Amino acid sequence: MDYENQFRQHLESLHQEGRYRVFADLKRRCGAYPVADHYTESGTRDVTVWCSNDYLGMSQHPAVRDAMHEAIDQVGAGSGGTRNISGTTHYHVELEGELADLHNKEAALLFTSAYIANDATLSTLTRLIPGLQIFSDAKNHASMIEGIRHGGGPKHIFRHNDLEHLEDLLKSVPLDTPKLIAFESVYSMDGHIAPIGTVCDLADKYNALTYLDEVHAVGLYGPRGGGIAELEGVMDRVDIINGTLAKGFGVMGGYIAASKACCDAIRSYAPGFIFTRPWRPPVAAGALASIRHLKRSELERARHRERVQTLKTMLADVGVPVMDNQSHIVPVMVGDPVHCKAVTDTLLTQYGIYVQPINYPTVPRGTERMRLTPSPVHTDAQMAYLVDSLRELWAACPVANGQYVRLAAE
Amino acid sequence: MDYENQFRQHLESLHQEGRYRVFADLKRRCGAYPVADHYTESGTRDVTVWCSNDYLGMSQHPAVRDAMHEAIDQVGAGSGGTRNISGTTHYHVELEGELADLHNKEAALLFTSAYIANDATLSTLTRLIPGLQIFSDAKNHASMIEGIRHGGGPKHIFRHNDLEHLEDLLKSVPLDTPKLIAFESVYSMDGHIAPIGTVCDLADKYNALTYLDEVHAVGLYGPRGGGIAELEGVMDRVDIINGTLAKGFGVMGGYIAASKACCDAIRSYAPGFIFTRPWRPPVAAGALASIRHLKRSELERARHRERVQTLKTMLADVGVPVMDNQSHIVPVMVGDPVHCKAVTDTLLTQYGIYVQPINYPTVPRGTERMRLTPSPVHTDAQMAYLVDSLRELWAACPVANGQYVRLAAE
Repeated sequence: MDYENQFRQHLESLHQEGRYRVFADLKRRCGAYPVADHYTESGTRDVTVWCSNDYLGMSQHPAVRDAMHEAIDQVGAGSGGTRNISGTTHYHVELEGELADLHNKEAALLFTSAYIANDATLSTLTRLIPGLQIFSDAKNHASMIEGIRHGGGPKHIFRHNDLEHLEDLLKSVPLDTPKLIAFESVYSMDGHIAPIGTVCDLADKYNALTYLDEVHAVGLYGPRGGGIAELEGVMDRVDIINGTLAKGFGVMGGYIAASKACCDAIRSYAPGFIFTRPWRPPVAAGALASIRHLKRSELERARHRERVQTLKTMLADVGVPVMDNQSHIVPVMVGDPVHCKAVTDTLLTQYGIYVQPINYPTVPRGTERMRLTPSPVHTDAQMAYLVDSLRELWAACPVANGQYVRLAAE
Repeated sequence: MDYENQFRQHLESLHQEGRYRVFADLKRRCGAYPVADHYTESGTRDVTVWCSNDYLGMSQHPAVRDAMHEAIDQVGAGSGGTRNISGTTHYHVELEGELADLHNKEAALLFTSAYIANDATLSTLTRLIPGLQIFSDAKNHASMIEGIRHGGGPKHIFRHNDLEHLEDLLKSVPLDTPKLIAFESVYSMDGHIAPIGTVCDLADKYNALTYLDEVHAVGLYGPRGGGIAELEGVMDRVDIINGTLAKGFGVMGGYIAASKACCDAIRSYAPGFIFTRPWRPPVAAGALASIRHLKRSELERARHRERVQTLKTMLADVGVPVMDNQSHIVPVMVGDPVHCKAVTDTLLTQYGIYVQPINYPTVPRGTERMRLTPSPVHTDAQMAYLVDSLRELWAACPVANGQYVRLAAE
């Protein structure tokens, strides 16, 4: 049985489709972000990172680094077990309290990542609530799709942000059937924002729980960084909020915030929680410092909004097709995996600009794109250089309105 | 729809069964391990931890802490994205190289935890190898069971470590049907060790891939800490090894080590890998330091073996029913969830000894137990105090041969 050959064939098909992924081998420099070292076969060179989800640059914030150093000196690197078996440290308890407060919920529960939080929570809710039917936005993240699939219950997919379609589907199920609406606040690949309040109106009308993924919004939106639901004053209307301590908060790990009974039931019944190790204490300590800082400081959020708006305007001015949205995501449609990779390879090797091409399964085939993420620490000069570089590339290689015009074969 | 009430009912049933889990809120003290602070409602008090999977105490090793401090200063707390989207740091690349070398494989692949590594790899192998049938040991860890279930392919469960039964099952499937045997080297709740070489003989005979979980063995066994397969000289006969950088190595995260094509195919096709964030650079740096140390140093392993043997002998001498095994796990059978929790609660509150009760679903109902994990840093005095305390409790409260005799009701 030639198993090796089977693996190789699968890889070959990715190469042929143009979506074999090469991970850029980077080493960031503390204090110099977004500049990083790029390790290549011919040596190390400077690149400017334009695609990180360290949206606010918090991973290098002095408060975060100090808290991590302190935790390493106080307790060491590890926690020593799963949360149940000797692995709950006081940092985790404090952090769950801080997150519950951030979202104004009774409780919060930590997971190793927001991916696991979605997967474990959604699949477990299906077990805990007999007959639960889930209504899921068509553009929901893979982790929610996995969680719903692993739960194995009936599901309904509504067209992305289309609340008429959602209502039609909700209506099709008896009023006393348990329901859950699963959606995101910021859809990370398009940058769309969901109408959270209106979704909650429908949830009230049809007896549904609401499950909101705020992974790309926490830290970034709302007066204390509570996300879009906080910004729009509807946080109390959402039953379960999913978030991350990576991205906006710059560290790692995921969580849910919800009622005490809900968090406790998930804690008690989710295998993904019971058996997985918690974050190490230094990581929890860093996350704690980051949340506390962003609850008080509006500086990073204000500067972030300005940088995003400036970049969107500059790109539009030179004719680069930025996809329209109200969020901090700056997606540039390319629409072809081979071309997308060619553009980003050129940016990396010739311009020292690192933008990872986004392809299937992260986005649907035919909608391959670049996804730029300006942060508060990207300078005017770095922005001007990015825009100039993209303008040059666009002039040399026509990509109009997201439709790549194949030159060679046609 | 009263969802809250449903959550509360589920919790109530756990309380009634005696298996509602209370997490001990601990803060370890660097340099003082296994002593830790236990946070309770009435204040903080000292406890000695006897159930940690930080088997060798590496989480507080100076080499690990120094490496983490250095990484925080050099690059900050975060990696900035998924491995694909700007999150691959040079630490990850180095660490994968180090792990491949540890297991003498072509490649290795990191995951946020060994749980995810099992789940993602096993479910993805089913997708990559059409018609794959999986043969799984009855006592395999929840994460392997989840991975096999998520893969959705045909599976066969063989009785724990029963190779005749395994062979019967392998025979029942045509020779040219693709197969995989999934098993563990050290079964963490019983401490049993699998006959790896003989399993590999069967795999050769019936054309099966071998998938070995060495999570409770890496760092602890073998001349370089490569696990039981290294100790027994059969590492090259195992196709895919799953391990952790938590437990023996004291930090966090999981991995697989296998052929280049296999790792690359899993990397490219597993959603659990594609979408999850990697460990933060400081964590990767700490893990790297830990592996490098344990590759060279036999000191911790020798001392660990001696401590384990001493404790097993001391407990047997006073009549505490240690379950027999050849590994470093010291399980003491209780056989009843309510009684198990009563014993461990008494140990914690009256003796300052922390041993988490192990109950369903971690072990089958009726086999509830304590699971002691002596480490190289547990002293003679701490060991004598533990054994005395258990002897006192056993005298006051009959538990014979793992059969708890209920006193109150009978």
